[in-house]
Order: sequence, then C-alpha cells, then structure tokens
Amino acid sequence: VIRVGLLGCGTVGSAVADTLVRRRAELGERAGVDIGLSRIAVRSLAKSRSVSIAAHKWTTDPWEVVQDPDTQVVVEVMGGLEPACDLIRAALRRGKHVVTANKELMADLGGELLAEADEAGTDLLFEASVAGGIPIIRPLKESLAGDRIFRVMGIVNGTTNFILTRMSEEGCSFAEALEEARRLGYSELDPSADVEGFDAAAKLAILSSIAFDARVVSGDITREGMGHITAEDIRSAHDLGYEIKLLAVAELEGEEIAARVSPAMRPQTHPLAAVRDVFNAVFVEGTGVGELMFLGRGAGGGPTGSAVVGDIVEIARNIASGSRSVGGGWYRRPASIKNPDDAVARYYVVLSVLDQPGVLAAIASVFAHHGVSIASVRQEGRREEATLVLITHAASEGAHVATFKDLVALDVVKSLRSKMRVVGTDEG
Amino acid sequence: VIRVGLLGCGTVGSAVADTLVRRRAELGERAGVDIGLSRIAVRSLAKSRSVSIAAHKWTTDPWEVVQDPDTQVVVEVMGGLEPACDLIRAALRRGKHVVTANKELMADLGGELLAEADEAGTDLLFEASVAGGIPIIRPLKESLAGDRIFRVMGIVNGTTNFILTRMSEEGCSFAEALEEARRLGYSELDPSADVEGFDAAAKLAILSSIAFDARVVSGDITREGMGHITAEDIRSAHDLGYEIKLLAVAELEGEEIAARVSPAMRPQTHPLAAVRDVFNAVFVEGTGVGELMFLGRGAGGGPTGSAVVGDIVEIARNIASGSRSVGGGWYRRPASIKNPDDAVARYYVVLSVLDQPGVLAAIASVFAHHGVSIASVRQEGRREEATLVLITHAASEGAHVATFKDLVALDVVKSLRSKMRVVGTDEG
Repeated sequence: VIRVGLLGCGTVGSAVADTLVRRRAELGERAGVDIGLSRIAVRSLAKSRSVSIAAHKWTTDPWEVVQDPDTQVVVEVMGGLEPACDLIRAALRRGKHVVTANKELMADLGGELLAEADEAGTDLLFEASVAGGIPIIRPLKESLAGDRIFRVMGIVNGTTNFILTRMSEEGCSFAEALEEARRLGYSELDPSADVEGFDAAAKLAILSSIAFDARVVSGDITREGMGHITAEDIRSAHDLGYEIKLLAVAELEGEEIAARVSPAMRPQTHPLAAVRDVFNAVFVEGTGVGELMFLGRGAGGGPTGSAVVGDIVEIARNIASGSRSVGGGWYRRPASIKNPDDAVARYYVVLSVLDQPGVLAAIASVFAHHGVSIASVRQEGRREEATLVLITHAASEGAHVATFKDLVALDVVKSLRSKMRVVGTDEG
Repeated sequence: VIRVGLLGCGTVGSAVADTLVRRRAELGERAGVDIGLSRIAVRSLAKSRSVSIAAHKWTTDPWEVVQDPDTQVVVEVMGGLEPACDLIRAALRRGKHVVTANKELMADLGGELLAEADEAGTDLLFEASVAGGIPIIRPLKESLAGDRIFRVMGIVNGTTNFILTRMSEEGCSFAEALEEARRLGYSELDPSADVEGFDAAAKLAILSSIAFDARVVSGDITREGMGHITAEDIRSAHDLGYEIKLLAVAELEGEEIAARVSPAMRPQTHPLAAVRDVFNAVFVEGTGVGELMFLGRGAGGGPTGSAVVGDIVEIARNIASGSRSVGGGWYRRPASIKNPDDAVARYYVVLSVLDQPGVLAAIASVFAHHGVSIASVRQEGRREEATLVLITHAASEGAHVATFKDLVALDVVKSLRSKMRVVGTDEG
C-alpha cells in the first residue's frame, strides 16, 4: 500500500480525499498498487466535512503528516508560501514524494524545492498548480519534449475571464461584473490577486519555466491589472473585431524571454477569444507542432482534484516500478529575461482631442518621432470634442510609452482615454 | 548513444529524421542520453531527400532496420497494416522499443502488439497515431489517470473538417470543397478513407480504448460518411444555431460503450463548432475534471513528427533510467459495445410534404407511434410542396430508424430530404 497524507482539506483537498476513498479499487488497478489515505491535516477539527474518514486520521498539526513514517506521498493543498514551503521541504528531505497545487509557491520557490527533490531522489509534481484540471505541465514536459516551444499564451485566471465575458456579452461595467463574480463565489472578497494579475503571473512563471527550460519567477513577469477596462473599451474592441482578455503571454525573442500579464485585444477569430466564463485555456506554439490549445476548467475541487490525483497515481506507479518522473533541469538554468521596455508590442489607443485643423498632423508626428507607425486610425468627430481610435504597428514598449507621454503633453490632446496591447495579428 | 531506425521517410519520416539530425544536442540534453539515427528504410533510394544523412544508412529493405543489432528504437511511419505489423512485431520480439504513427494498425492490432511489448518488456508508443501533433494519448493515460472519463468527442479528420468549413463559410457544395481540398493537397485522389469516416473511426477506436480502459477496434465503431451533406443542410443548421461537423463520439452508457463517427450538428456556441479548416480537436469529459478540449494540427510532417519525436525522447529517458512507460492494461480487457440500435440520439429531419390539411397530424402520429418526441418543428410552406424541418428529443437510434421508414411510406410525404444527428444539448 502507498500511503498519502493530505495537508489541507478545503475545496481541493476534500475532492482529493473523496476520490482516494471512493475510487480506491479503480485507482489501485490503474497505478498497479493500492493507494490509501494516511493522515489529513486541517485547521479545525470542529468543521463538518463531507468525506467520511476515520477520526484518528485527522490532525490539526501538519507536521504530523510530514513526519508520519507510514506516509510516502504528501499532498499540499493548503496554499500560501508558509508554512507550505517548510512542510514540503521537510517532506522531501525525509524522502517523501510531494504533490502540490500551490502556484504561488512553485512560481517563487519551485526551483529550490525541485533541487531538494532531486537531492532526495523523490518526485515533486505540480500539474494542478496551473490551470486547474487542464493537463498542461505534463504535455509540455513530455509530449512536447521533441519540439521547440517559442510562445505560450494563456487565459489562466477564471475570475477575470468571467468578468470580461460578462462585460463583453452583457455590456455591464467592471464593477457590476465583479459583483456578480463575488455572488457566484468566483471571486474572493479582496479580488486584487486576480484583478491585478498576480495569480496569472505566478502561473505564467511556471509555464514559461517548463516551456523554455529555464527558471522564471513571478518577479520576472511584467504585470498590468484589468480593473481599468471600461464598457467603452469592450465596445471599441468589438467594433474593431477584437475581444479583450487578460492574457498571460511568454515568448522567446532570440535567447531572451519576454513575459507579461496584461489585458490585451485578440482577434475574435482566434480560439482564445472564444474562451468564455471561468474557463481557462493555454495556447502553445512550437516550431514543429505549430499551434496547440488546451482548454478546460482552471479551478474548483473537481478539476483541480483530478489533476492532483493524476499526479498521485503517477507517483504510485513510479514507486511500484522503481522509477522517477521527468523533472527537467529547468530549475538549474537561470532565465535571461528581456528588458520589458525592449519587448515588442502593438497598441490600441483612444485619445480625446480638440476638433480643429492640424490635430491629426500633430498627433501623427508624435508617433513618427518615436518610430511608432500607425496601422489604423478612426475619428469620431463631435463638436468641441473628437475621439481618435488608433492601432499601432509593432514597436518597442519603450517607444510606445514615450509616445503616450508626449501625446498627453500636446495642447490639442485633452486626454489619453485608453490604451491596450493588441496581440496576435500577423506582426505578432 | 540510443540508436533510432526509421521505417519510412515520407512527410512524417523526413520531419522526424530532420529533427533528430539537426537538434541532436538539444534532444540529447532533454533525454539525458544522446539519440542518434542508425538506419532508414525507404521504398526507393533514387528519390531526392531534403534530409542530409550518410548514404550507408539508407536501405530499401525494412527488415535490415528491424534486424540491425545496433538499433534500439524502431520508428514506423510507413503506414498500412502490412508489412508494418510484421515489422513491428519482429522489432518488439527482438527487445526493441517501437514508436508508431499508424492509426489503422493501432486501431485493429494495437492490443496484440501491446501484448508483445509487455511480453518483451519494451515500450510501444503511438501518440502520433491520433490527431497528429495534439498531445492526447499521454494526457488520457497519465494526467487523467485519477479521473473517470465518460465521453470523448472529436474532430479527428482534417480533410473533412476543411471541406465542412468551406461549405459553411463559403456556401459551396461538397464537390467544390472536395476539389479545393485536393488542390491544396489535403485530400488523397481517393477520398473515401476520409469522407466515409474510416480514418476517424480508427482514431476513435484508439481514443476509446484508452479513455474507457478496454479494447475497442475499428469494427466496433458505427460509421456514417459525410458525402451526402448538402449546402441546404448547412444553411438549415445555421438557421437553427448549429454547425455541422464530422464527429467521432464515444461515450459510456452504463457499462457499455457507444461509439460512432457521423456528421452531426453541434450548437454554434460549443468550442468544437469553432474548430476550423484542417484543425483537429478532442473534447473529453470526466467526472472530476469536467470538460477539456485539446486543439491543434492533426496532420502534416511538423505536427505528427513532433509527436513521434516526443515519444522517442520518452523512450530514451526510459532506457537511460531503466524504466518503462505506462502502457495501461486496456488491451487485455474486451470492451462491451452497445448495440447501435439502442444508442440514444436526437435527429434533425427534413421532409418534403404535400401542402394539404392533416399532413402535420399524420407525420406527428408516426413519431408518436415510435415513442420519438418532437422538440421543434418549422414549416416552410410553398404551393404544392412544403418543407418540414423537425428536431427530435432523445430516443433510441432504432426508434428513429423505424420512424424514418414509416415516414417515407406515408402518401403525404414526398421525400425524406435529409436527416442528421444533433449532438450536445442538454439531453445529450
């Protein structure tokens, strides 16, 4: 029997415990060895739980799970950096295998923990840490091991995708959509981890590390939130044939990795534009395979639990056959991160301008001065106040930022109403 | 060094050879062991090849590759049942590992060959046999090992999806779209393997075997071609909010597997409806994970070669670490296949009827007599000849077939102009 100890029994933990108990025979058959549940550490024993597990297996001390000599596999689904990191490190040092769903931890300290696992000769698997139930870590590590991935692009935060879907389909405001997300339990009371892109950045760091075979951490990701998106932006995007998504994009530019999370416009014909509600999707491009997309539910006990149990079965198979999972040496290689100012982008820009002769010429010459060329421009004139909607051709972030700065300094420009990256047309 | 011998050097074989030669250092690093190319068997040595490989490695005798004592991995990309099957069997018996892209072979004789591999203690991998470059076999076997899959639904033939996309987007006829597919090299001179659904049925047999953990062969799949689809069907589908796709669907109904390939209407809001041109997609539903979709290119040297090289790297890692890949015991378990007449379906039906009183009553009573209830009906009346477009609620295939038979026997029915399955609404 291979014994599994659980750290945490919230939404994901309960789903995992429930699966291990109810489908024990089936999982045992698939793994080639019986898989049992040894201990479960929770914050409070008083809370009523839906899983039926013998009383003596529960504890409020997570160290009991990690130190339990009968437990070979420790599953960490408590979240947060500490004490999760200490617990996992201790488990690995005791020769235990670890499965974690903790993106924050893997994004920041994954390299260190994988080194511990290599040292101990154990497995540390984390399929559930990115995009919930979508198999993405294993396909990148194994199925695509023969290919060269040059871009990974994802919708990896369900809450913000739900908000953007509501705004796009119902025409409601950010605040209204956020309120609905809260009502449905998709959003925390403090939505900043989602809305500011921290959650997506952690996931992108993990994806980039594996795709590009080098250690990328959350801090390497350029990050911009999506709370400023207005109903007007969404309408404009539709008029231009785009959808707005909170996109996590990482790409190889030469030997450097450019990685950012930001709202971006995608052509409506692109498969990512059709990813609705709380669904997640990861789009991968490789020199051989071309374009791939993996779509599914990025959160919730069922999907995330499915990924965790998949990892547990893999470890059980490994123990039974005396082998180890593919780790990938990425954590040993430091990543070379492109200076965000040098990264190439295209922008959608909305300016409120005076409606008088010479305005367009003045604006166009600011763009020209910084070497940013204009792909399209549309003027919606009204007396006293006109609106200019421009889309630029590819140029550096730095050149765009300098252009925006000079534009707002122009007398004829009343305000820079909106700006947003445009991703995924012919020019990249 | 791990030495790889190639059987076949067509589109896929050349891509594989090219990758092994040009990216040898990188692949060696990923696999943890150097991977070299030992022999390549081709039909003719006279043909000029784009890959640059020493002359002595080429042969016209595939048995030389299989019998070469230095070759540890045999890659079969020649296609067809024989001599591929004999060659693979002989390679396995000599203790060699095998990678194949041969769906026809794996669908019909995969069980037997996997048994040979188990006997010999070697790996037989076939990621490339289904949906080209899309990682689907490994995710089903490994990532979803902790879940219970109850439905697999795919667009797994690029040629027919290209034809249907053209018909849907350009309004052209089947014949015109087929002609364009031929011109672009997407279709063979004899398109029947694609159009009649044989290719998709073989792929569905492989997918079902792994998803449901039992041996399903091509002959178990109920199959219907798509050559009869008319521009009128496509227009009707659009009017009703559907796209027509050649769908491969396998699902668990109780303990039995119902599997069929046929044209089917999918709601336009479903992700599969948005899969265009030669793209393939596999939609998977599991009790834990919910809905997943894997999208990518299902054919071509680059994508299929990427999957083959991924399998080669996995085998190299296994050899280096002394382990074996997860086979899955599915080939040992015979599948229980549902009688196709008992499978549940919904249908879209177009009838040409006389425009006179009592017609609808006569028709409705035929449906009622067979226990098939009508979900929607639309009459497009014209003098002397009216058209009825009906969609049924879920009922057995058998009940539907009996209904259609009785309908055409009615005096008031001039013809059953069209009928097609409707898949994927609330009622399944």
